[in-house]
Amino acid sequence: MDIIVLRPDTSEEDIRHILKKLESKGLKANVSQGTERTIIGVIGDTSKITEEEEDAIRAANGVENVVRIVKPYKLASRDFKKDNTEINVRGIIIGGKKIPVIAGPCAVEGKDILAGIAEKVKAAGATFLRGGAYKPRTSPYSFQGLGEEGLKYLAAARDKTGLPVVTEIMDPRDMDVMMEYTDIIQIGARNMQNFRLLLEVGSVNKPVMLKRGLSSTIKEWLMSAEYIMSRGNHNVILCERGIRTFETATRNTLDLSAVPLLKQLTHLPVVVDPSHGVGKWDLVAPMSKAAIAAGADGLIIEVHTNPEEAFSDGEQSLKPDFFAKLMQEMKPIAQAVGREI
Amino acid sequence: MDIIVLRPDTSEEDIRHILKKLESKGLKANVSQGTERTIIGVIGDTSKITEEEEDAIRAANGVENVVRIVKPYKLASRDFKKDNTEINVRGIIIGGKKIPVIAGPCAVEGKDILAGIAEKVKAAGATFLRGGAYKPRTSPYSFQGLGEEGLKYLAAARDKTGLPVVTEIMDPRDMDVMMEYTDIIQIGARNMQNFRLLLEVGSVNKPVMLKRGLSSTIKEWLMSAEYIMSRGNHNVILCERGIRTFETATRNTLDLSAVPLLKQLTHLPVVVDPSHGVGKWDLVAPMSKAAIAAGADGLIIEVHTNPEEAFSDGEQSLKPDFFAKLMQEMKPIAQAVGREI
Amino acid sequence: MDIIVLRPDTSEEDIRHILKKLESKGLKANVSQGTERTIIGVIGDTSKITEEEEDAIRAANGVENVVRIVKPYKLASRDFKKDNTEINVRGIIIGGKKIPVIAGPCAVEGKDILAGIAEKVKAAGATFLRGGAYKPRTSPYSFQGLGEEGLKYLAAARDKTGLPVVTEIMDPRDMDVMMEYTDIIQIGARNMQNFRLLLEVGSVNKPVMLKRGLSSTIKEWLMSAEYIMSRGNHNVILCERGIRTFETATRNTLDLSAVPLLKQLTHLPVVVDPSHGVGKWDLVAPMSKAAIAAGADGLIIEVHTNPEEAFSDGEQSLKPDFFAKLMQEMKPIAQAVGREI
Amino acid sequence: MDIIVLRPDTSEEDIRHILKKLESKGLKANVSQGTERTIIGVIGDTSKITEEEEDAIRAANGVENVVRIVKPYKLASRDFKKDNTEINVRGIIIGGKKIPVIAGPCAVEGKDILAGIAEKVKAAGATFLRGGAYKPRTSPYSFQGLGEEGLKYLAAARDKTGLPVVTEIMDPRDMDVMMEYTDIIQIGARNMQNFRLLLEVGSVNKPVMLKRGLSSTIKEWLMSAEYIMSRGNHNVILCERGIRTFETATRNTLDLSAVPLLKQLTHLPVVVDPSHGVGKWDLVAPMSKAAIAAGADGLIIEVHTNPEEAFSDGEQSLKPDFFAKLMQEMKPIAQAVGREI
Repeated sequence: MDIIVLRPDTSEEDIRHILKKLESKGLKANVSQGTERTIIGVIGDTSKITEEEEDAIRAANGVENVVRIVKPYKLASRDFKKDNTEINVRGIIIGGKKIPVIAGPCAVEGKDILAGIAEKVKAAGATFLRGGAYKPRTSPYSFQGLGEEGLKYLAAARDKTGLPVVTEIMDPRDMDVMMEYTDIIQIGARNMQNFRLLLEVGSVNKPVMLKRGLSSTIKEWLMSAEYIMSRGNHNVILCERGIRTFETATRNTLDLSAVPLLKQLTHLPVVVDPSHGVGKWDLVAPMSKAAIAAGADGLIIEVHTNPEEAFSDGEQSLKPDFFAKLMQEMKPIAQAVGREI
Repeated sequence: MDIIVLRPDTSEEDIRHILKKLESKGLKANVSQGTERTIIGVIGDTSKITEEEEDAIRAANGVENVVRIVKPYKLASRDFKKDNTEINVRGIIIGGKKIPVIAGPCAVEGKDILAGIAEKVKAAGATFLRGGAYKPRTSPYSFQGLGEEGLKYLAAARDKTGLPVVTEIMDPRDMDVMMEYTDIIQIGARNMQNFRLLLEVGSVNKPVMLKRGLSSTIKEWLMSAEYIMSRGNHNVILCERGIRTFETATRNTLDLSAVPLLKQLTHLPVVVDPSHGVGKWDLVAPMSKAAIAAGADGLIIEVHTNPEEAFSDGEQSLKPDFFAKLMQEMKPIAQAVGREI
Repeated sequence: MDIIVLRPDTSEEDIRHILKKLESKGLKANVSQGTERTIIGVIGDTSKITEEEEDAIRAANGVENVVRIVKPYKLASRDFKKDNTEINVRGIIIGGKKIPVIAGPCAVEGKDILAGIAEKVKAAGATFLRGGAYKPRTSPYSFQGLGEEGLKYLAAARDKTGLPVVTEIMDPRDMDVMMEYTDIIQIGARNMQNFRLLLEVGSVNKPVMLKRGLSSTIKEWLMSAEYIMSRGNHNVILCERGIRTFETATRNTLDLSAVPLLKQLTHLPVVVDPSHGVGKWDLVAPMSKAAIAAGADGLIIEVHTNPEEAFSDGEQSLKPDFFAKLMQEMKPIAQAVGREI
Repeated sequence: MDIIVLRPDTSEEDIRHILKKLESKGLKANVSQGTERTIIGVIGDTSKITEEEEDAIRAANGVENVVRIVKPYKLASRDFKKDNTEINVRGIIIGGKKIPVIAGPCAVEGKDILAGIAEKVKAAGATFLRGGAYKPRTSPYSFQGLGEEGLKYLAAARDKTGLPVVTEIMDPRDMDVMMEYTDIIQIGARNMQNFRLLLEVGSVNKPVMLKRGLSSTIKEWLMSAEYIMSRGNHNVILCERGIRTFETATRNTLDLSAVPLLKQLTHLPVVVDPSHGVGKWDLVAPMSKAAIAAGADGLIIEVHTNPEEAFSDGEQSLKPDFFAKLMQEMKPIAQAVGREI
């Protein structure tokens, strides 16, 4: 059911016009004359009213507001599927009791350096390797990633360590090569509403990690998950990575309250990226612990053997020793919330 | 010149380490011991320091902050080119004394309805026709546009009315068909940092209208223009369309102060989209006038013969009569700021 | 009428509990079983439901959401009073056809310098004199204003020039002295929700200029006006002065769309402060013109004979000559929107 | 040291003018001609440059930007005082190893109900009682608190349970009565920049809990702490309670990254208010745990025996049993980060 609020002076004719429109969609209406406003309650399967039809109703004479009750996402909704979605990637479960940790450099910089980092994070207890082969950079003059070469290095590091690989896609034309090398396809924050790319990754049989857009609401984020799922790929992992606010003391504002809220709204697993969320390596440890305590299903953390020489995001990368220590420190917190790490 | 601010307790060794790094880039440094902080002034062509190198310096031991003085964009900067860029599209100048108005429906819905709207807006004084063939929609269940069919209708309407056409691209794979039919390629707000798409439209010989991202700073926006220009296409038009803020009473917050600020920072023309900026048709007229008064080089306004039946954004579309009246009302304002409409 | 949306699995008992609660307030309810959600429509004078009762309903078992239809402000609402409020200050009307301009320094710094500025802005066509005697500063170590001494200088400048005076109050304990010297009492942005101060200025017979809070919604702003009006003082002037957003290129983001929106929602006059809105003197002129074009009922502009020596906000102050030129340039824009300046 | 960045075309005369100004403050300057910009490095005790002088420099001819290196707060800074501030309130330490929990209703509603809640939260392990006697409400028609009567009930509940009391002040005229009844004076988010009130609580000998403003940066927040401390009262407790962002799914966005960041910047204790931060009772438990994991020095949680009948904020209040369970669940998390609860 939806509600249409009318302006105080709406004419009978305008009301009839709206009612006729609803009828044409097979919907019934219930007009209530209040002391200050008249309201039309729309009865029936209002999920059939599309966004554009909603806009059109809003544009009708006399309409002050339209309140939609039905959530615009379905497949992603907890109403649709009660049980948590568990995603199995080469034997590792995302969304289960054990919390996977994805670690690695921001960008893939070379074969040996990547292999070195992979071994270190594996030894520390990480269960996935991250690393960007295609890098979205604000400047055209910055390092844009090694491309397919980088994907090959990731695959090589996986072969050596057994760590499945997470890496970002930026262009639908790279789908084939991504399918060949990666285990989880990442959609970056800046592409959360790159709808064509969403449809593309929705059409393949590989898990997708969907990062939250810089200024995306939780509803829009779930709608982007819905885009992917609507094409058949239900293995979507949501990744909170900080939103843009007025505060500039941190790179972004990590919205940890999104974690427990999402666990109510959706059955999809939710992981947290504290590295991008705060943008300062010395805040990553406390925020990783906080994410676990808030109920996160996983973490993605930037680790680099030599942050000062990193090609990007050195500022927010942990050194392997520090990361190993953090992995140990998170164990009792995971246990305290009924999980393992 | 850039400045590196050190923490109070930074060791001599850490300072030497940073100085060596700068030297390796061919830069000189000037260390100043203040009472509270030590500062390194970097001398030389610091524009050579890439974003990733800046990050790496930030990650170095002892560094509290890095302050960059040089603007990260060059080609887009007013420093680079003093005179306003004027873009000639089939004989109509964008960026000149006369202010072009781009009008039309949000989405192309059908051949006849589009032709009808095109004639009406032309009669009212519009100089360009807008209309989406590929539509970015938050819901996968919403109307996604007519695709190439829609482009053909746009071209047909242009042939009939003489109005050059502006339409949005969402996917690099659509470049060929876009080149065939449109006169200005629009990059939508959600794709402002779809860097692959930017490089693509930067490689062709057709003007690009780059909308500001929902939460993009003016600096990031100019960096995205720089992406396009770095590939050779210098015909970029910036379009302010409202930013996302905490305020929900309007669809977005139209940032008109961006207009005079951009006229200082860049030589590129700046147009304003009041329709998306406010999202309510009855606020479009005052905000269009305000945009002209603020110094906008153009306007893009949604007009529909039947907003209530529009496939999208009916709420913010003007009816042709209302649009015609607005066109008249803007004339004296344009004149008051030394322009024509 | 209000709407209560229930979770899918709400028990009959929980529903009865809510209905009983509504009954106890003398309200009727209309329960509609939808396919996805059950909804309770609340019938009767729901304006009687206070904010705290609404919170309590939200807290009840089974409640997913509460949608309020009735606007929370009354006296400030256009529904309550159809005609524009015109406020007469020593013979000058705020809210009428002629647009008053309030000009002067950020802070009162001395008797002579203030008198000098007052004469210059009067000569340029300003109709009010502004100047802070009590200054809200983020730092305790900054100049905090001359206090009562400053008020005396303002009154002296008014006696000399005939310009009525606008100045800010920061403390309810300063009411008596404010009543003695000023013509319009200003509530600053940081005090927009200093409710005790609002009640105080609501209890006197002097116009109040209420600045919008840095992150206040238009609804909250009108609620603060309602606070003042609820005590009997209906002479409230709203002042848009920019909101805080993620953008740092301007001091604030001037929300000019608030102007035409407020003209729909309320009968109170709306003035604009472009000086604080953008924080850079060279953007003040275009934004002043834009404000007039958007329908503002007045402007408040910082003018200083020597901005570089100003005790505060020098960066955003106009020199008198520049201000005089702007006054001339705004005339045709005012005329274009059916006003005078 | 501070840096003044000049526009490319600044004249020799303009530079001399600025240098003379700096000299008059006893500061030395170091002019560096870069390839793109000229820069003036200001040497000496630049903390003497006030905010208004900074503004004036910004307003000088030729100045493009001023970069301040020195932090504007001193007493609140970790540079000023290396050791954590521990505040002793009737024998309970805030800022020490043991984490105090402040619990109680949003508003004091009656003597018996308050006493009942106080006993419950004490039994659950809370160490302070909260409750508002003066309530800042957005609507003038909402319950505004019991005033002095409420303070008496708080004192009575303290006498019965031994729990020291935290309550909010809204008006400097209430200082005497506050001093009589409360143990910690709370400054609410809406009054974080009510500078007169800050000076008032800075002049007394009682700890102050300073909530972060809805859209206040961490720097502004510390400046407000500095206001209080500058008057002699160094017992300031910072309270993160969520900031305003574009996201509306939660009441505010709880910025937990502020906690570890503040622990670097300041020696003052930092507590977290998850109840206001998220505004939904069922998210309070995970966010309380996350706050502890992030390093919070305390929590303030709304608890009510009957949230549905609460006079305010029922939606975000925990029932005593739920609160007691949460207290137990937080113990292992506190232990995991080297604390106790």
